[in-house]
Amino acid sequence: MEQGKKDLHLYVNIISQPSRAIIIFCKLNNIEAEVHHLDILKGEHKTTEFKAINPMGQVPAIVENGFKLFERLTSKIRSHAILKYLAGTCPGVPDNWYPSDPQQRAQIDSILDWHHGNLRRGATGLFMAEVIFPMNGAPKDTKAIADAEKTLQSALSNIEDIWLDGNTNFLGGSPQPSVADLILSCEIMELELLGEEKYLSLLDSKQKIRKWLGNVKETLSPHFTDVHDSLIRAFQNKT
Amino acid sequence: MEQGKKDLHLYVNIISQPSRAIIIFCKLNNIEAEVHHLDILKGEHKTTEFKAINPMGQVPAIVENGFKLFERLTSKIRSHAILKYLAGTCPGVPDNWYPSDPQQRAQIDSILDWHHGNLRRGATGLFMAEVIFPMNGAPKDTKAIADAEKTLQSALSNIEDIWLDGNTNFLGGSPQPSVADLILSCEIMELELLGEEKYLSLLDSKQKIRKWLGNVKETLSPHFTDVHDSLIRAFQNKT
Ligand SMILES: N[C@@H](CCC(=O)N[C@@H](CS)C(=O)NCC(=O)O)C(=O)O
Ligand SMILES: N[C@@H](CCC(=O)N[C@@H](CS)C(=O)NCC(=O)O)C(=O)O
Repeated sequence: MEQGKKDLHLYVNIISQPSRAIIIFCKLNNIEAEVHHLDILKGEHKTTEFKAINPMGQVPAIVENGFKLFERLTSKIRSHAILKYLAGTCPGVPDNWYPSDPQQRAQIDSILDWHHGNLRRGATGLFMAEVIFPMNGAPKDTKAIADAEKTLQSALSNIEDIWLDGNTNFLGGSPQPSVADLILSCEIMELELLGEEKYLSLLDSKQKIRKWLGNVKETLSPHFTDVHDSLIRAFQNKT
Repeated sequence: MEQGKKDLHLYVNIISQPSRAIIIFCKLNNIEAEVHHLDILKGEHKTTEFKAINPMGQVPAIVENGFKLFERLTSKIRSHAILKYLAGTCPGVPDNWYPSDPQQRAQIDSILDWHHGNLRRGATGLFMAEVIFPMNGAPKDTKAIADAEKTLQSALSNIEDIWLDGNTNFLGGSPQPSVADLILSCEIMELELLGEEKYLSLLDSKQKIRKWLGNVKETLSPHFTDVHDSLIRAFQNKT
């Protein structure tokens, strides 16, 4: 291996929102990586082999060997940290993805922090309860569905009122997309798997979110739309 | 106001774990700030006045006026972003608090990311269900208590097995404390309010965590212990 050349491995699954964010980010920024697809519906992320790479047994994960082979310091890092790390260490990534200005960076950090307990919890909670658990024959848990939908509605309102406050094209007042736009939009796109009617009804009153998603698609395509088209196709094959 | 001098306001409550992390961080690093204590048990964080500062109506919050008075870009940022922002912009903060090395930084980012859905959810969930909700006369919700305790136990195991893996003094393999040590230790200290017996039983089998908490207390005192002594006293006056 060339001295200084990164040997980057991505462990991902297309059905995983943060995995898609990282796949799209690498394509947009010409970051070369060996991509390993793990079928999480088949439990390929819970094998001893993969847990030796990422002890949490979750995707996305990265392993980056620097000068020393088997230097695996990066294997425990999680999606938001992966994106920030790649933005900071891969040559040529434009500043807008993770701004070096401290106040702008703090906005992006806060949106990503907020994401975990709000949009992620609502959207993933709803998707798991509506789609994934019933796939294995479990009856639908109506209380879990109602709780997740409440969290999701309140998160969508926060996005409209707080993160898209003002006349902004991207989250947190940015004129250009950041890693926060990628993470949050990939999460919302997962809701398409609930069916078009449900997806549209969730976003019906959310004008700013619909406009922002339009900006994301326009600015990040074809990669953003390609990856999401593959998601829909992959999912149709499963169900 | 002097040109260039920061005019920093902290909005905090001692019962709030991330508020304490920020109070201790400022004391340790001689960061001057005007501290506003909001009694969250009395709802002082939900007033129109405070929501004009932080639209989420949560503590901790900061407002930093730079050259222009009323420039409030910082008011929407959340605890983890506040700590990173202060570490990056206040002169003289040692590098260990938020390392500039990309791999070390990615470890700290990941621990903080992980915190939200794991330790925070378990510990705060348990504290709310065991202590805060019953304060207002609600009967104890035994299912919520059991769920939170399960999340907490699994989070504590993750800290032992993953973030304190190897012979390390601080989280993520750091020889010195970082903002992640502050956030996680302040969360665990909240469990003391469950009573000494419960606190000790939760940490009984967690040797590495007990050793790490000892390192944190030793390295960050007197500020760390002072603030937590005030917490215990403040809490005894409430109950
Ligand atoms: N916060 C982590 C979460 C990753 C995560 O939840 N991954 C999911 C797929 S989106 C997964 O691997 N789930 C399987 C599991 O947790 O067992 C990150 O952002 O990287
Ligand atoms: N993730 C936020 C959470 C802040 C938070 O949960 N604050 C609590 C106190 S620790 C609060 O203000 N609770 C009142 C509420 O949410 O209404 C942060 O880290 O700043």
